[in-house]
Amino acid sequence: MRLLYREFFDKSFINSIENECIRLKKRITKTFGNWGFSLVKKDTDLVNYFESQKGKWNRFVQIGMGGSVLGAQALCEFLSVPKGKSIEFVDDIGSSCVSSLNYSPNTCYHVVSKSGSTVETIANLIYLINHFKGNPDKQIIISTGSSGFLKEYADNHNIKRFLIPDNVGGRYSLFTPVGMAAASFLEYDIDKIFAGMNRALENLISDTPASPYLLAVITSEFLRKNRRNLVLFCYSERLLKTVYWFRQLWAESLGKLIDRDGNQVRTGQTPIVAQGTSDQHSQIQLYREGPLDKLFCFFRGPADHDEKLHAGPDFDRFSYLSGHSLNEIKYAEYSATKDSLAEHSPVISIETDSCSEQSFGLLIMNLMLATAITGELLNIDAFNQPGVELGKQLTKSILTKNEIRL
Amino acid sequence: MRLLYREFFDKSFINSIENECIRLKKRITKTFGNWGFSLVKKDTDLVNYFESQKGKWNRFVQIGMGGSVLGAQALCEFLSVPKGKSIEFVDDIGSSCVSSLNYSPNTCYHVVSKSGSTVETIANLIYLINHFKGNPDKQIIISTGSSGFLKEYADNHNIKRFLIPDNVGGRYSLFTPVGMAAASFLEYDIDKIFAGMNRALENLISDTPASPYLLAVITSEFLRKNRRNLVLFCYSERLLKTVYWFRQLWAESLGKLIDRDGNQVRTGQTPIVAQGTSDQHSQIQLYREGPLDKLFCFFRGPADHDEKLHAGPDFDRFSYLSGHSLNEIKYAEYSATKDSLAEHSPVISIETDSCSEQSFGLLIMNLMLATAITGELLNIDAFNQPGVELGKQLTKSILTKNEIRL
Repeated sequence: MRLLYREFFDKSFINSIENECIRLKKRITKTFGNWGFSLVKKDTDLVNYFESQKGKWNRFVQIGMGGSVLGAQALCEFLSVPKGKSIEFVDDIGSSCVSSLNYSPNTCYHVVSKSGSTVETIANLIYLINHFKGNPDKQIIISTGSSGFLKEYADNHNIKRFLIPDNVGGRYSLFTPVGMAAASFLEYDIDKIFAGMNRALENLISDTPASPYLLAVITSEFLRKNRRNLVLFCYSERLLKTVYWFRQLWAESLGKLIDRDGNQVRTGQTPIVAQGTSDQHSQIQLYREGPLDKLFCFFRGPADHDEKLHAGPDFDRFSYLSGHSLNEIKYAEYSATKDSLAEHSPVISIETDSCSEQSFGLLIMNLMLATAITGELLNIDAFNQPGVELGKQLTKSILTKNEIRL
Repeated sequence: MRLLYREFFDKSFINSIENECIRLKKRITKTFGNWGFSLVKKDTDLVNYFESQKGKWNRFVQIGMGGSVLGAQALCEFLSVPKGKSIEFVDDIGSSCVSSLNYSPNTCYHVVSKSGSTVETIANLIYLINHFKGNPDKQIIISTGSSGFLKEYADNHNIKRFLIPDNVGGRYSLFTPVGMAAASFLEYDIDKIFAGMNRALENLISDTPASPYLLAVITSEFLRKNRRNLVLFCYSERLLKTVYWFRQLWAESLGKLIDRDGNQVRTGQTPIVAQGTSDQHSQIQLYREGPLDKLFCFFRGPADHDEKLHAGPDFDRFSYLSGHSLNEIKYAEYSATKDSLAEHSPVISIETDSCSEQSFGLLIMNLMLATAITGELLNIDAFNQPGVELGKQLTKSILTKNEIRL
């Protein structure tokens, strides 16, 4: 992973942010040992379990909301699903997810909720149980915290259960069974994922400037300058789900009413996903001419080399397309869009060179670290989410009172 | 379609916006006859053409960017694709779209670009031609403006061509062949779509307060109060693509540097798509506790009545879910989320009661009218897009100089 920023800013600004990173590193190094997500180790119980089940399933359905599925989705898209296996994610309720929930005998259903009581996840589990024709306990596995409804349910039914450690928040839980169960099913190399993750941790304390500090310093600098929107402009199909995963991480971790000293701050930056090249034709007019409230962070992964186009004589006016593949044209648009936005707005870019397990671990840990460090800079708790309770209570009260009309 | 707003605001605010709508109606009625998109009539050449081709194709691939595909996608999702037919949309370049572009003999390829020179569309057409094994001219149809490269190409090759009228901008072109070709292929009732569209136009000049005026007055009122983000929170799978279509319409039409008097205004509102219920677990923390810069517009369509859940004794703690279907739980969450956000932020909601051709025409025309009226209120040109040129020039220059590295 490379964070590109030097080509977009002037020298004095670059000096000031790089110096800020050095100061920050001294401060953070003291506390960072307490961040649970950076302490996660390979879950050998999980690895042994999937080893023992080899060949039993060819379909894997992960049921969960937000951080309980987004990271696993990101992983599967980045590394791609091997032939002969299929994986589905259920992160909603209603008609759209019913087909994934319907029972089929060669499927492993992985139910994930750290609290153990996420209402959509429980509703989907009830639906699944209502439709099970065989013995559900043999096809369901559960990942949850050390207490709560799902833990009790698993234990009462002798369902295989994996632990999401208490000190790892849901949106930071990709390296726990939340993400690693899918990785085991798909036979990705988990040691390499952890090697990438550890590389990010080593970089953070090394002498060279590390991306997480830079990302944190740049984003909070522009947040101070009222760039309250962070457009995540993705030019790689392999990275789109990673960008959606990061969208949750950034929004929930930094969108806070109260700072650590109890002051009302209403801080945070609104992450917005844009997809290259299609959103060039949908959003660029606004991005270039509308309010100057956006910081742009591009994402570019490696592209397959595909076949070159041959624009015949009929396409004379477009002869400059000849000799280029569709992927090459896409990456020309990535460069061009970056440069056209940089005229009036701050732009940075994250590039990854390969779609390997190691690259993924490195990228994800860098983004987690950047988020946590930004929390420190904003003096807020990047690990809680006090604002989500009211909606849950209202849902329960509406359902209890039977106030629905479809 | 219903626009809900009265339950969210206090009486004096409601009075002031409703009065503003009356004033506005007098002003707009004079100019609105000039808005090309409201004058579109059924293209009988198109309807006759598809009538004559009946049974020839079972697959339809629409190739275009932004407004050239989003509206047709919205239509197909809203009305759903009948069994035995399939439809695909190509609005990007690179690996992801190659499988749709590959030649197959029972497919109609609909190439759409109003300017006739959208570079991604032309590149995809070249790819398609490079891979054609039969006679491409018999399987390609083209919708384009009255001049430009695609018009010439179609005429030189005797390819069936449909007209996008000059006075209808790309993002307002759903009722032209841009959207109606897919509708004809799928055998939707086009007369009913136009009946819905005309209903919206009639409502606009009737005596009751019409949704487009209200939507325009409410959004521009909150834009003045620095609610620069418009979150489009969608609780219906049938409406998600409609919301993406509206996202382009709102962003490109209102995101403008210069007003009609030539003053620099940098106005516009950033539309952000959120998906219920999953984004409750991804974005609500930010939406409730972060900066107060958002206006929320919910979208709710009709839901299928699906099977009720039976929470057995194991699920005692969740007995309130029993007797409700997954769709009912989803709509309880819609109500709860709306109410929880309304505590600190302005909220409105658009509800549609049926997924019929008529409802779709009505909804789309209401949203187009609301956008154009908001343009009037902001004193900007809601029909141009001067900000998108630089990126196109840079792409061409990069490709011409062969500066790509993958």
